[in-house]
Amino acid sequence: MTESTDSLADTDTAPALPDTAGARPVAPTRGALRPLGLGEVRITGGFWHRRQQVNGGPTIEHCRTWMDRLGWTSDFTDPARRGARDGRGLQFADSEVYKLLEAMSWESGRSVGGAHRWRAAVAELSEGVAAVQSPDGYVHTGYGGPGRPRYSDLGFGHELYCAGHLLQAGVAAARTGADSGLLETARRAADHVCEAFGPGGIHGVCGHPEIEPALVELARLTREQRYLDQAVRFLDRRGHRTLPEHAVDRAYFQDDVPIRGARVLRGHAVRALYLSCGAVDAAVETGDEELLEAVAAQYDRTLDRRTYITGGMGSHYAGEAFGDDFVLPADRAYSETCAGVASAMLAWRLLLATGEPRYADALERVLYNVVAASVADDGRSFFYANTLHQRVPTEPAVADRATRRFGGGPRAPWFEVSCCLPNAARLLASLGAYLATADHGGLQLHQYADAEVRTRLGDGRPVGVAVSTRYPDTGTVAVRVTEAPGGPWSLTLRVPHWAEGAVLAEPGGPRRPVAPGTAVVHRAFEEGDEVRLELPVHPRWTFPDPRIDAVRGCAAAERGPVVLCAESPDQGGGDLEDVRVDTGAELKYAGDGAEVDGRFEPPLDNGRPYTSREPAREEADTRTVRLVPYHRWARRGPSTMRVWLPRLD
Amino acid sequence: MTESTDSLADTDTAPALPDTAGARPVAPTRGALRPLGLGEVRITGGFWHRRQQVNGGPTIEHCRTWMDRLGWTSDFTDPARRGARDGRGLQFADSEVYKLLEAMSWESGRSVGGAHRWRAAVAELSEGVAAVQSPDGYVHTGYGGPGRPRYSDLGFGHELYCAGHLLQAGVAAARTGADSGLLETARRAADHVCEAFGPGGIHGVCGHPEIEPALVELARLTREQRYLDQAVRFLDRRGHRTLPEHAVDRAYFQDDVPIRGARVLRGHAVRALYLSCGAVDAAVETGDEELLEAVAAQYDRTLDRRTYITGGMGSHYAGEAFGDDFVLPADRAYSETCAGVASAMLAWRLLLATGEPRYADALERVLYNVVAASVADDGRSFFYANTLHQRVPTEPAVADRATRRFGGGPRAPWFEVSCCLPNAARLLASLGAYLATADHGGLQLHQYADAEVRTRLGDGRPVGVAVSTRYPDTGTVAVRVTEAPGGPWSLTLRVPHWAEGAVLAEPGGPRRPVAPGTAVVHRAFEEGDEVRLELPVHPRWTFPDPRIDAVRGCAAAERGPVVLCAESPDQGGGDLEDVRVDTGAELKYAGDGAEVDGRFEPPLDNGRPYTSREPAREEADTRTVRLVPYHRWARRGPSTMRVWLPRLD
Repeated sequence: MTESTDSLADTDTAPALPDTAGARPVAPTRGALRPLGLGEVRITGGFWHRRQQVNGGPTIEHCRTWMDRLGWTSDFTDPARRGARDGRGLQFADSEVYKLLEAMSWESGRSVGGAHRWRAAVAELSEGVAAVQSPDGYVHTGYGGPGRPRYSDLGFGHELYCAGHLLQAGVAAARTGADSGLLETARRAADHVCEAFGPGGIHGVCGHPEIEPALVELARLTREQRYLDQAVRFLDRRGHRTLPEHAVDRAYFQDDVPIRGARVLRGHAVRALYLSCGAVDAAVETGDEELLEAVAAQYDRTLDRRTYITGGMGSHYAGEAFGDDFVLPADRAYSETCAGVASAMLAWRLLLATGEPRYADALERVLYNVVAASVADDGRSFFYANTLHQRVPTEPAVADRATRRFGGGPRAPWFEVSCCLPNAARLLASLGAYLATADHGGLQLHQYADAEVRTRLGDGRPVGVAVSTRYPDTGTVAVRVTEAPGGPWSLTLRVPHWAEGAVLAEPGGPRRPVAPGTAVVHRAFEEGDEVRLELPVHPRWTFPDPRIDAVRGCAAAERGPVVLCAESPDQGGGDLEDVRVDTGAELKYAGDGAEVDGRFEPPLDNGRPYTSREPAREEADTRTVRLVPYHRWARRGPSTMRVWLPRLD
Repeated sequence: MTESTDSLADTDTAPALPDTAGARPVAPTRGALRPLGLGEVRITGGFWHRRQQVNGGPTIEHCRTWMDRLGWTSDFTDPARRGARDGRGLQFADSEVYKLLEAMSWESGRSVGGAHRWRAAVAELSEGVAAVQSPDGYVHTGYGGPGRPRYSDLGFGHELYCAGHLLQAGVAAARTGADSGLLETARRAADHVCEAFGPGGIHGVCGHPEIEPALVELARLTREQRYLDQAVRFLDRRGHRTLPEHAVDRAYFQDDVPIRGARVLRGHAVRALYLSCGAVDAAVETGDEELLEAVAAQYDRTLDRRTYITGGMGSHYAGEAFGDDFVLPADRAYSETCAGVASAMLAWRLLLATGEPRYADALERVLYNVVAASVADDGRSFFYANTLHQRVPTEPAVADRATRRFGGGPRAPWFEVSCCLPNAARLLASLGAYLATADHGGLQLHQYADAEVRTRLGDGRPVGVAVSTRYPDTGTVAVRVTEAPGGPWSLTLRVPHWAEGAVLAEPGGPRRPVAPGTAVVHRAFEEGDEVRLELPVHPRWTFPDPRIDAVRGCAAAERGPVVLCAESPDQGGGDLEDVRVDTGAELKYAGDGAEVDGRFEPPLDNGRPYTSREPAREEADTRTVRLVPYHRWARRGPSTMRVWLPRLD
């Protein structure tokens, strides 16, 4: 970890080109790379731009409509409801309103339309939150009354979790200029938390981590040391079994061993990932290298042993939890959307702290194959769990009712526990901030999209590039220098781990092969200079570690960063239960997917599932198996689907 | 289904040789086969005799000790507690006391020692239950007070479920002569249920089926038509969505479609199986062929598509539920012990109704590989879930505390939800009644153990045989006629589905091959005549249906009815994560297990779980992989284990 020129004292006073230069979710005062704000990176076209446009309009509107309908917002905005302390949602419903506030704030910093559309809503909801806040700073619509006293159920009450999301919303509002009092409410809430859980206060932690990264970020924004201290206090307290034992999983709350004593992420996946985010944030601010290395090692091991090919995390429905190493069933993949969002958050923090491109690889994987998969094209329905194998076509949930079904079946408009859509919304609205970074001597591009980047290098020189690409449909990424600061600097491009055979063309210079990792061009660029990166995005086979029992004898197809899948409507009536593919045959381009030779051969029915002779199959001719991007599946009504394809060979 | 000579009117008046001739859990008035009572079949040695002895002493004592310690019994027996209506266990704790009463009753009918030991306890607990019973017949220690009014939570209250177990305990006590008022209490409880849920009463069903088979059995014992009518009423009501939607699984309560409209068992496994038992019972008594055929078809399909090789049922931790067809993960097999007991109950009922030997096969499979596996050698610890793949050696639960952990790790002495051990105890104590049946013209042996059978044929002639065998260690079963009624009759022996190459030797006659199904010897036997059945119990490979994704590319070894497994202490340090076996090599006898050639080859670490080249492995020499009976695993401290072995070939 190298120190940047930033420090806690001047994080938000760096010169901003547009107003929202500082508008980024994570603003560490040191680390290998400096994140850029929404005013410094604008996604202007392509895959993610379409997603951002849908997110910034229909999705945010859809969330607002549902939260209004269910009374989650009016618990704040309706004066008659404010004192009730019997919130009509579950105990974490407040956090959904805060995530919506955060998404609206980022969106108002991302686009002019967003600012027009959502600032008033931010103001209205912010006023409601302030009105519910007690004089001492405590805010929760469900706790604090006589029926449910404050902090009477730290395990499942989610009070500090909700407070954490309020803090993050306040930070987003402040950094995007959308703030109309929300930051002040957040500060008062944070002061209350420090008071209630500080020295001499309650010696406990929240069952759901979230307050930890939130307190660090608020400290970064406000330069208030006590918030950072309180985050460290919560992090140090965890792992000492102050929470009750969970029925399903001893590690559910990550309260089984102290953070730095763990080897791998475990227990409830979202909890584990949010906690890790907070630990990285605190480690960076306090210079705690040991803690940073511990969390990085845990995440590395989790990526190696407990992560789906999609980047999804969490194998178990019971406890929404990580499984043991290599327990990665495709058909019961829980892979909660929120865990995908949380993994993106953690990967980003570790990328900033270490500069290691493998974290940008992890971020890309989860963005294309979990976040993009979870939300429907129209932005108005979503997956809570992201299965990798749909065996039975399942009818959609009833359109006007929040479903209780977390897995299986098409995307649903709303769930009783509807954390995922507002969570994806706040990530998508702020996605520009995850594309590029700067350091003292250059600019780094981590994700590829049509984009404009304008910032200053660490030495203060202004720099700008425009990225033009049809990625991931094609692999060519053109980076044109739009503002050249004079003198040499480095443009660093990530070469994804799968991109063997990538080629880089420097301005006017020869083409040269570049290996996975990063490709650096160091020179005194002139305006108009263009660097071209050519990534091989032809479809390829991917084979699993042999220890992943659930997909033994299978292969998956990928194309660039995009995982492909076979979905029933494309198979001409072939049953995916019976499909087998020839991984020796060529995977051919077919639109944004692929085609390959395979067979649909049902097992001959012998009336028994277990037999002493190897089961025979019906004979079948070789046929084409069609593969489409996994993120596009389930958009054509009930269907079956599989990512992992049994092999003929 | 053929009618026997029995009818509801004379079921329990048939001449009994010993006192407990009628002591059997299920006594249909018609059906293909007539069950025998504990006084008619005595297991005298071997595998199940050892189990019964441990069950009848240490296990029942262990259950009693824990239920005393947790206050579940004293909620009945302590006069100061009786009116409290705030039962100290969970809402189904009463049912554990009833299952214990049932187990004690069967045990008192099984053995002289059992009668000495447990009759007083049955009397004491029965008196307690009677004391808690309200004047109108209602009994529950947790419901019925102001905090939890009667039937205020049909979904999860378990009041009728508890009542059902009370009825079954009352039936067992009455049929074994252990009764000291419990049957009367049960009758009053049943009268109350008929009153409360009959015409004009509550139009609902219990979230957990159990009252249905219990009411039918009480009707059979008491010849009270209204109990049968009420069971039919509950069965007809189910499937019409009177229960709330369950958070995890729409089919959880089997309230999604009417029983006869379903194709396969689904939802919570124990619930589905108990409900099916009740449906078979009612169908048999009312002559409802359509219902009987529907349930038989559902169970057949479940055996073909939703059952582990062990006979275990239920793939999901979440909702303790059946998965979709062919979803049978080994490492997350829930396979609850109670579902094994319930499947044994259903298989038995369908065997009696139809005479089809495949149900005796199913019964044998679940007995040896779920019921026998679940309880420890000393009878004082048990599995709640029965995994088929233990990846990580897990420390045992704390010895003196009821654990909340349902799966993973060694057997535990007690669980917070401890339904399984008393359930296994009642089955094991009554197991003699599951060995043999009679019909008009003969005697059928379904399970093989050292045993003495004495009964009367349907035409009243007395008949007796003695079975001598070391099954399942060896495959020879000798059946000697101990009482010959004069004139011809049929001795029918089941030939298990796996026993290809079985040979039958008739008295003084030639040996002849017999095919899986049944082998019948029809003759005028004389006392001392011996029929010998030779079943091939050499170890054999078993291959899964290719649609079971979780075990693709694997094989399991079996020996007779016993599933084998590889457990870590037997592998000389080889890691079961890396094992592969050669299914082309000979499986050799090794004690009660087997040995086979295999290799332990770890994948070469490439730092990524998903790669575009097929993962390589370390080279290794061929070594012996040792296999032991699955039911014996986890008796040597924390270990890893796998039933399904990846194939080298």
